[in-house]
Amino acid sequence: MEIPIYIFIALIAGVLSIIMAIVFAKKVMKADPGNERMVEVSGYIESGASTFIRTQYKILGIFCIVLAVALLFLPSPLKDYNRAIIFMNWEQSLCYLIGAVASMLSGWLGMEVGVKANTRAAQGCTIGTKEGFNVAFFGGAVMGLAVVGSALIGVSVIYMVFQSALIVLGFSFGASSVALFMKCGGGIYTKTADVGADLVGKAEYKLPEDDPRNPATIADNVGDNVGDIAGMGSDLFDSYVASIVAAMILSTSVVLVGSKTLVPLFIILPIVICSVGLIASLIGIYIIKWFGSEEPGKALNTGTYLATVIYAVLAFLIIYVMVLEYPKFFDRLWGIYFCTVIGLISGIVIGFTSDYYTREDRAPTRKIAEAAQEGDAVVILSGFSYGLMSIIPAAIGIIVAMAIAYMLYGVLGVGMAAVGMLAIVGTIVANDAYGPICDNARGIAEQGDLGDEVIRVADKMDSAGNTAKAITKGFAIGAANLTVMALLFSFAEEAGISIIDLLTINVLIGAFIGVVVPALFSALLILAVQRNAGKMVREIRRQFEENPKILTGEEPADFNKCINIATRGALRELVLPSIISIVIPIAVGILFGVAALGAFLAGAILSGFVFAILMSNAGGSWDNAKKFIEDGNLGGKGTDAHKASITGDTVGDPFKDTAGPSINTLLVVMSLTASIFMGFLLLFGGGRGLLAAFL
Amino acid sequence: MEIPIYIFIALIAGVLSIIMAIVFAKKVMKADPGNERMVEVSGYIESGASTFIRTQYKILGIFCIVLAVALLFLPSPLKDYNRAIIFMNWEQSLCYLIGAVASMLSGWLGMEVGVKANTRAAQGCTIGTKEGFNVAFFGGAVMGLAVVGSALIGVSVIYMVFQSALIVLGFSFGASSVALFMKCGGGIYTKTADVGADLVGKAEYKLPEDDPRNPATIADNVGDNVGDIAGMGSDLFDSYVASIVAAMILSTSVVLVGSKTLVPLFIILPIVICSVGLIASLIGIYIIKWFGSEEPGKALNTGTYLATVIYAVLAFLIIYVMVLEYPKFFDRLWGIYFCTVIGLISGIVIGFTSDYYTREDRAPTRKIAEAAQEGDAVVILSGFSYGLMSIIPAAIGIIVAMAIAYMLYGVLGVGMAAVGMLAIVGTIVANDAYGPICDNARGIAEQGDLGDEVIRVADKMDSAGNTAKAITKGFAIGAANLTVMALLFSFAEEAGISIIDLLTINVLIGAFIGVVVPALFSALLILAVQRNAGKMVREIRRQFEENPKILTGEEPADFNKCINIATRGALRELVLPSIISIVIPIAVGILFGVAALGAFLAGAILSGFVFAILMSNAGGSWDNAKKFIEDGNLGGKGTDAHKASITGDTVGDPFKDTAGPSINTLLVVMSLTASIFMGFLLLFGGGRGLLAAFL
Repeated sequence: MEIPIYIFIALIAGVLSIIMAIVFAKKVMKADPGNERMVEVSGYIESGASTFIRTQYKILGIFCIVLAVALLFLPSPLKDYNRAIIFMNWEQSLCYLIGAVASMLSGWLGMEVGVKANTRAAQGCTIGTKEGFNVAFFGGAVMGLAVVGSALIGVSVIYMVFQSALIVLGFSFGASSVALFMKCGGGIYTKTADVGADLVGKAEYKLPEDDPRNPATIADNVGDNVGDIAGMGSDLFDSYVASIVAAMILSTSVVLVGSKTLVPLFIILPIVICSVGLIASLIGIYIIKWFGSEEPGKALNTGTYLATVIYAVLAFLIIYVMVLEYPKFFDRLWGIYFCTVIGLISGIVIGFTSDYYTREDRAPTRKIAEAAQEGDAVVILSGFSYGLMSIIPAAIGIIVAMAIAYMLYGVLGVGMAAVGMLAIVGTIVANDAYGPICDNARGIAEQGDLGDEVIRVADKMDSAGNTAKAITKGFAIGAANLTVMALLFSFAEEAGISIIDLLTINVLIGAFIGVVVPALFSALLILAVQRNAGKMVREIRRQFEENPKILTGEEPADFNKCINIATRGALRELVLPSIISIVIPIAVGILFGVAALGAFLAGAILSGFVFAILMSNAGGSWDNAKKFIEDGNLGGKGTDAHKASITGDTVGDPFKDTAGPSINTLLVVMSLTASIFMGFLLLFGGGRGLLAAFL
Repeated sequence: MEIPIYIFIALIAGVLSIIMAIVFAKKVMKADPGNERMVEVSGYIESGASTFIRTQYKILGIFCIVLAVALLFLPSPLKDYNRAIIFMNWEQSLCYLIGAVASMLSGWLGMEVGVKANTRAAQGCTIGTKEGFNVAFFGGAVMGLAVVGSALIGVSVIYMVFQSALIVLGFSFGASSVALFMKCGGGIYTKTADVGADLVGKAEYKLPEDDPRNPATIADNVGDNVGDIAGMGSDLFDSYVASIVAAMILSTSVVLVGSKTLVPLFIILPIVICSVGLIASLIGIYIIKWFGSEEPGKALNTGTYLATVIYAVLAFLIIYVMVLEYPKFFDRLWGIYFCTVIGLISGIVIGFTSDYYTREDRAPTRKIAEAAQEGDAVVILSGFSYGLMSIIPAAIGIIVAMAIAYMLYGVLGVGMAAVGMLAIVGTIVANDAYGPICDNARGIAEQGDLGDEVIRVADKMDSAGNTAKAITKGFAIGAANLTVMALLFSFAEEAGISIIDLLTINVLIGAFIGVVVPALFSALLILAVQRNAGKMVREIRRQFEENPKILTGEEPADFNKCINIATRGALRELVLPSIISIVIPIAVGILFGVAALGAFLAGAILSGFVFAILMSNAGGSWDNAKKFIEDGNLGGKGTDAHKASITGDTVGDPFKDTAGPSINTLLVVMSLTASIFMGFLLLFGGGRGLLAAFL
């Protein structure tokens, strides 16, 4: 099978992206790290983050090796499943490890640079917004570019070597396993530190945010890096790769029905589309850099819009060239083009509706802030309700995109819409990682005594980051959702099931279990944060009580104790949720068969969407309602309304930064598990499941 | 078609039940209503409740008449749908009105007696637990017996007249429309008053619970009657009738495949099963009355257990007699018997797991109470997480029951399991209505100055009622869920769709919309309570500020203003959710076709289950965590932990008493709407929907 030359666009774009990441990283490193105190604080953060990542990667390494060995014993997708003999499946196993390593490397690089960018961005703010913004944004862009570049190179090289989309699944599964650990672990870590620091430091001892006397301050700053930068990066990395693989698998079967000679063109089309998207992202990143110095918030959004438009233009050109080469596929190629554009538009729309629901100058957050005047309970009820309401526009966005894409090109259309939605993920990740860098820069400016004017500049940058974050969070949920829909179809394709009939009992049971799993998963993560934050609270109290000099600032707090609590707790608590996401789909498949497993995935996707949007948006709007009050509205700081809004924010913390966003990864991991273990599941009653005989 | 004589058991049991209701009602009326002050307070409650019910029934009347007229123009199910001409469908329309009136009458009777029982139970407590318990329990039993009796008589007479299960659907739809209004309206009312009274009276002015100086006290007491007694009664009424109808429809088709001569026996079997259950319930009620005088809590549970055993024995006997008459249906009859027993056992198990998660002497509620020591936010996160966890055992209960029932007898087995689960609903409703009567009795004892000893007795009775309520709530959710599953199958049967394929896009979209609807519905109800409670809060503050003599007790508060706010608000706010539950299923059917509508129902059922259990159990455990602290644990009243636990309880109020339980009714109404409008929906693209051509 000859692979069309277009795939080299992917390699070129991928390499270009990695080069740019290195260039940006160097630029960040060259910037002035600031005064002695700042370097000291930044050093703490760096070593805390390194400790976490190192410890996590050790456990993750064991987990990945165990899974890689398990994969070895599965039937290979390159053979015939129906022969039902366990083959050595070294191809998927190897690619699994490559995917895991690629994801770990880009997570590590992104975070390493992110940490370095913190103090340098703070120092940049002493010169002006432009300098601060440049460092922070370049720091974030490194993560975005590393993620996208390594994903594209990985996918295209593996496809060139093995010429099977099913082997690329292994790569995707590797990336997703890492993402699951990064999201859950990072999410628990960051909120353990944040909630702990807030509950004792801010509430009991009235210390300001990021006060160096608070023993959990450094852990909190580390948390921003490991949870928000590395976590979100690996989340989008895994959706990105998964969407490409799903579309490749769907292309294989859909196009096979047409003309055999053209198979390779259509299979690599998702990769080509993403390469074009990457180039658009690079341009978008430059646009943001250009305009960002003056009005950071506007620049981030304008960059996203323009990257979308540039993507549409570039993709138009490349499809035009393809149509010239293969005129008889005029309809198919243009159909796919429109699917990608629709997917991307729908992603932007979902991002902006989640922005609407969480933004402090819009009605929902205003009403939540007003509800805070009536007390803690009312602010919770209000935020929870608006969180539920915000599901509606996002659901409409997904449904419309799905319907139009399907109308244009069936299930492959849905797969390509997911690819399109994730095409400019480079820009998205860059915008997203910018946020926590600014957040930390602000903290370091505070701890490094850079003065009020610098903190004001850092605040302005931070606030732009928060808006960008709300948009990218909605975007990430939408993208993951459309991706897992595509994975559902590709799973069915692979399993050879043409029908998942809800009127059969095993399918209905599968759907039932699927709907419940995201709820269980969320509960485990929230309880993990709560348990761990409890330990943190006790440790902070102990330090203040045993050594009163910490509070007076005469002696430094013991940051390492807090870092250790956050690290160990996060790693211990992520085990159960991770196992669930792999074991439950396999168990459903073994017991109830692959059709039930399909329904399980569908149930989990839909319920996961509801929970993810609810938690992200409720959490975001509580956070901003608090900020709205802190800005001096409704009486401002110190009022009862402010106190109530802090309760809302604290409830929202694990909602929006731990449970909510982890659900994306859960869905992708479960979908990939189902596909990867397919050959194995077909051993049980020919895919009808062990209980089939009874039901 | 000759109807087997067994149906007369239903008539006899139904009439017996109504007679017992009247006897019990008379007993309650004859009891001593207590001192002048108690009669006065009780008079206020009575007139408040009457005002609400009268106003609600007026609006409900208009709503029902409009719907009855709409039904007239639907294609009649007695004709052939496929001829696609709109016939005069007077049969369903008439039965719809009968169902609505029957439900309204039993709701009215139950509430009227419940209100009278309040003060009489309080007075009974002055003599002893026995006297108080008897009045409260008889008062509750009136509701239970009226509901079950009128349902059984209605269903069997309508079936005898029209000999079509599809016409009985009309009756069921009538009952459910009323239930929807009663649940949503009553739920909003009761929590408007409760939250309002708590936020100002208890939190701001430190008045004790049920203090007569609090202007919202009477409205709060009225709320217990309209929300908890009438609402829960009509909820179980509608599940009860719906489960019978679903099983009848499923019998029609399943048995048709077998022998034509035996159709009638199997169609009336659900009615016969329920009659047997009613007799078991009556015995259960007597058992509770017998043992209840000493240990109310134990008696309520023992009664429920024994009613289950008695049901199993009686049903065994009647099936035995049937088998003697029709020996060749040995397998079928025993299969159905076991399905009903499994359904009932699963209902009890779900009830007891929800009791476990909400009981103050069990781990979850204890841990929530301990979390209260760490502040408002932590208690919310903890309760929310345990609420999510509590979905798992309940889901396992439903899944196991569904699987075994299906294994024994296919979809009819599932239908019969739902019937079995609801068989002893008479006892369940009686236990449930007992709770709010005791709650009010306690309030009246407080307001009537009956002294600490009497209040202690009333408290003991009340606490037994709370446990019973937790069990019946779980039970009601389980029963509604299994019922709507059966309705889903009967819907598919009726629509002639043998497959609902999740891999087709319209079906997937239908499921997506279905999963989102319970979230939207919950949000609307919670916001309604919040908005309305806000008005109540302002009114209470206004009264206290404008007339300081209210606080000193020199002048009475203006109860009627508060009652009016609760009444008007509840009625205004229930319109949108009610319309949604009828319009959305029809819209999905018209646009995406009946298969998508089936998937919509499945999605709504599963997501509704998750939300209903989450909200009910989280709410229940917050409530009990607060009580646990108020009992003197963890520092007791007045501590920060207590304050935090009050926040939890206030958040839980609309969760557990408004949104959570209303979801049951939403699901039943949506399922019935789908079935009733079937003939109409088949007009659009032959049931494939208007958008079918595009998708």
